[in-house]
Amino acid sequence: MAKVYTGASMSLDGYISGPGNSGFDQLFKWYGNGDVEVATTHSDLTFRLTPQSAEHWRGIVDGTGALVVGRRLFDITDGWGGTHPMDVPVVVLTHKVPDGWPRKDSALTFVTDGIESAVAKAAELAGDKTVGVNGGTIASQCLEARLLDEVWIDLVPVLLGDGTPFFDGLENVPVELEGPVSVVEGRDVTHLRYRVRYP
Amino acid sequence: MAKVYTGASMSLDGYISGPGNSGFDQLFKWYGNGDVEVATTHSDLTFRLTPQSAEHWRGIVDGTGALVVGRRLFDITDGWGGTHPMDVPVVVLTHKVPDGWPRKDSALTFVTDGIESAVAKAAELAGDKTVGVNGGTIASQCLEARLLDEVWIDLVPVLLGDGTPFFDGLENVPVELEGPVSVVEGRDVTHLRYRVRYP
Repeated sequence: MAKVYTGASMSLDGYISGPGNSGFDQLFKWYGNGDVEVATTHSDLTFRLTPQSAEHWRGIVDGTGALVVGRRLFDITDGWGGTHPMDVPVVVLTHKVPDGWPRKDSALTFVTDGIESAVAKAAELAGDKTVGVNGGTIASQCLEARLLDEVWIDLVPVLLGDGTPFFDGLENVPVELEGPVSVVEGRDVTHLRYRVRYP
Repeated sequence: MAKVYTGASMSLDGYISGPGNSGFDQLFKWYGNGDVEVATTHSDLTFRLTPQSAEHWRGIVDGTGALVVGRRLFDITDGWGGTHPMDVPVVVLTHKVPDGWPRKDSALTFVTDGIESAVAKAAELAGDKTVGVNGGTIASQCLEARLLDEVWIDLVPVLLGDGTPFFDGLENVPVELEGPVSVVEGRDVTHLRYRVRYP
């Protein structure tokens, strides 16, 4: 099956968002602090990355065949208007398919019967590429189900104090990882890749 | 005044100890996974470090002139029998000086009137070297009092899920840092150094 990774910008104290959905100015600063323009499928969303972060980002985009996200992110982004900025198929794990979805012109699929099913669907859509899963609850569910192969952390030098942990609600701890198997130093971010080591 | 840093082994999710004081096997693994023997003042405590971590460790020991710790660590270690393994003077911040202390043959000083006073005393003892302060509550107090210059994190690839955060009880967030100003890759640990950026 396709390799499964989770990746997110994370504060030094382990949060992918701060209290009350704050902290994104700091967490996403590295998407805009360089000179390399990287377009997305959304004309109003262009990243400005350092050369190091741009190469790292392109590696992610080129390698990713499908994404698994939770209902919360779908709601916040309103389903990205139907097309994810990375231009890949997206599987939304939800208890109930939202009204008006799925849409014919979109690459969003809805799965209501659990994380295994969502990841399997995404793997099918990804072909020989990797599957990316959202940080937060989805990442934890994937890890608990032993479906997660790698953890990619964009480590940002900020302390948020509270908020949503990268692995939210993790129950079977400790979880040992291996690495970092790669370290890329950007500006205001360190890109780290770890492998999960299942006992 | 002397430069003030805090340093600790930290899990990927931001904890310096796991639930119920667990997690030390993982957090301190890098102190024993190499071939370079490093003696301490305690004959029964010898580290076995990789060459990278050994050099990093020696840099810390050579540069540190005094430490500030909290009462909890003093109690857990029973004051290290009077001599800290790093062989430097230690200032213990406590509400009440413990019975039987201070001792004539020890390099432990007790301060009862707050973090500013504890750090000032340590700076006096440190001479032209740096002052190291404990992770947890002490690190947060130092940060809130704008006394902290650098944060040194030995980042360990484990998820602990809960426990004592590196910066425990931090109130004035977000706190922006600068860096990492240095990255040293050890085995099962990445040594990261950040500078605090006060607004």
